[in-house]
Amino acid sequence: MNARYEPENRYQAHLLRLLRDHGPRSRSELGDAVQVSRSKLAVEVDRLVELGLVEPAGLAASRGGRRSGIVRIASATRFVGVDIGATSIDVALTNGELEVLGHLSEPCDVRGGPEAVLERVFALVDKLRQVDPFPRVHGVGIGVPGPVSFREGTPVIPPIMPGWDRFPIRGVVGRRLDCPVLVDNDVNVMTLGERHAGVARSIDDLLLIKVGTGVGCGIVVGGRIYRGVSGSAGDIGHIRLDESGPTCVCGNSGCLESYFSGWALARDAEAAASSGTSPFLGRRSAETGVLTAADVGDAVTAGDPAAMAVVREGAARLGRVIAALVSFFNPGMVIIGGGVAGIGHPLLAEIRSVVYRQSLPLATENLPIVLSEPGGTMGVVGATHLISDHLLTMG
Amino acid sequence: MNARYEPENRYQAHLLRLLRDHGPRSRSELGDAVQVSRSKLAVEVDRLVELGLVEPAGLAASRGGRRSGIVRIASATRFVGVDIGATSIDVALTNGELEVLGHLSEPCDVRGGPEAVLERVFALVDKLRQVDPFPRVHGVGIGVPGPVSFREGTPVIPPIMPGWDRFPIRGVVGRRLDCPVLVDNDVNVMTLGERHAGVARSIDDLLLIKVGTGVGCGIVVGGRIYRGVSGSAGDIGHIRLDESGPTCVCGNSGCLESYFSGWALARDAEAAASSGTSPFLGRRSAETGVLTAADVGDAVTAGDPAAMAVVREGAARLGRVIAALVSFFNPGMVIIGGGVAGIGHPLLAEIRSVVYRQSLPLATENLPIVLSEPGGTMGVVGATHLISDHLLTMG
Repeated sequence: MNARYEPENRYQAHLLRLLRDHGPRSRSELGDAVQVSRSKLAVEVDRLVELGLVEPAGLAASRGGRRSGIVRIASATRFVGVDIGATSIDVALTNGELEVLGHLSEPCDVRGGPEAVLERVFALVDKLRQVDPFPRVHGVGIGVPGPVSFREGTPVIPPIMPGWDRFPIRGVVGRRLDCPVLVDNDVNVMTLGERHAGVARSIDDLLLIKVGTGVGCGIVVGGRIYRGVSGSAGDIGHIRLDESGPTCVCGNSGCLESYFSGWALARDAEAAASSGTSPFLGRRSAETGVLTAADVGDAVTAGDPAAMAVVREGAARLGRVIAALVSFFNPGMVIIGGGVAGIGHPLLAEIRSVVYRQSLPLATENLPIVLSEPGGTMGVVGATHLISDHLLTMG
Repeated sequence: MNARYEPENRYQAHLLRLLRDHGPRSRSELGDAVQVSRSKLAVEVDRLVELGLVEPAGLAASRGGRRSGIVRIASATRFVGVDIGATSIDVALTNGELEVLGHLSEPCDVRGGPEAVLERVFALVDKLRQVDPFPRVHGVGIGVPGPVSFREGTPVIPPIMPGWDRFPIRGVVGRRLDCPVLVDNDVNVMTLGERHAGVARSIDDLLLIKVGTGVGCGIVVGGRIYRGVSGSAGDIGHIRLDESGPTCVCGNSGCLESYFSGWALARDAEAAASSGTSPFLGRRSAETGVLTAADVGDAVTAGDPAAMAVVREGAARLGRVIAALVSFFNPGMVIIGGGVAGIGHPLLAEIRSVVYRQSLPLATENLPIVLSEPGGTMGVVGATHLISDHLLTMG
């Protein structure tokens, strides 16, 4: 196929988007979906085949007349999705329908700085590409755990990413992999993944609350990510709940994150271990030397009362913020994701109880509050959605 | 002009919207604004003149060649805007550019029920129409102080509007005034007014916090009102700040409204008068028998310390909610409106101080927080915008 994934007009872009999101379709099904003359459709589909962006895929069952030809996104199409977390990186290779062909994950401290982290990313991309018969990557999407200037593709004063401020990720990765690159924050990227392939398909207005090391919120309005006027929309981790609350990493006190987040849970776990209120965490601390949010999750699973109390109290704080956002935003779905969501049902139950009790009945009567699949590929898939959508918008 | 304000195609609708929002324009200016061939433009403008929706208005200054004809919305175009508040009704008659030709306001208790209140509205419309040389109203927009099913044009379980639940306002008014009618809540209608003719022109993402008897929020995303999946978006008055807070009109406790709203201020004023902490309010109460939020405003203006403390404390609570919403939504402007906004600078100063201290720097660095003009016509103008936009969207 072509070196560039570049439709020639909006019409072709629309067809490519349909084939990406819904898989192979017959020409007559495409005609039904876009409501256009048979002849106009035939011209544009033929042109997409000519450009190498689409390929024939057999014949559909007859609908009475001649059997309609099925087409699909060219099988040589390749996107790379990168999800850089605070403590790990995930890289996936997908086809043009954003199906994951390969996925690699490894621990990696984002504080190592952009050069070191991106070298690891390139190594993982190389590894995934070794077994791939097709030579070209058509675009790379990248999520990073901090605020991003979407236009410039650079992190902007990211609190947990020292050394990354204004680093030109887009240019560096684009030159190395020789293709278009887009960068967004990890929460938006995960939200796009849930919309494309996860629990939020066909939901047009939704919130995704990601609780990882920090806390952020992805906002979808009318099927599109809402970023706000300076790109900081959804940055809810530092909403102040109580000015006399715990000290936060941001230097203020009483922020949401200071009550409930990956780092706050690790802090609470250390306290519960050293004070002796949690025998489970005490033992774990003696074994491993350092406690994380995942240890709190294990303690909850083991039925440790102190850990359960910590989770319940933190989740109730988060639930009160979500309840306010639900009253304000009236979404069609709320998704709880990120590493801390791995705690699972005890966390979800507390959040649901607070939101259903505190938000307006009109806003909650048909509101699902669900967990994202833990350890999934929503981040990397969302990153490929980001870049492929960008390429289709330009067409 | 025509009985119906009904463009024949999207193109005509676009031209009418330009003329409504920007006033008379020459044909060549219209051509620049819509980027279309001269001949196509001429055909559509001529057709609008033929339909009686647009009329010639002289010749523009020469731009080198032949002088271009100016056109404007037909001067016989009439819209009616109705803003029903908890304790007053406002009715305005506008031309097709939504300029107010006449505006009447009178006290009216919404608890009187729909028949009685709408009779007053019809009386005011008749009064405004008496001096009008043109015979037809082309559309009516109505704002009501409660949740509305936008599609059906009826209030839905509105807490402060007994007797209005599911009342078919749209049908009743449409039959009486023989024209299309649209109903929305008062906050959305006011927000549309500020976008059309107030402080928010050209701001695409904004929040309007209306503090009247209750508290609500208008949300604009990408230049359009965002209503949420069940139409309750912006319903922030019952966000729970503290479950052990004051009892609210909704039956819960600690809602935002129970701390700061028209009714909460009236309650606090009564307390300050009867306990003797506010000599000003004590005297006012003796004179009038009942205290309102407006009396608190007068007391603040007179420098009464107890009233100032009540306002400062309530405004700080409201400010904390706004600060959270600013972090979440990253708007381009925040407008404070509604009757209580008449307290003016002392209220605004407290809100600004809390928001600028508590919200993210990225979200506040270019964020104006401003007062709506008190006692203005934003509600009625917004209501005419609602109905005219609806008519233009159908075209």
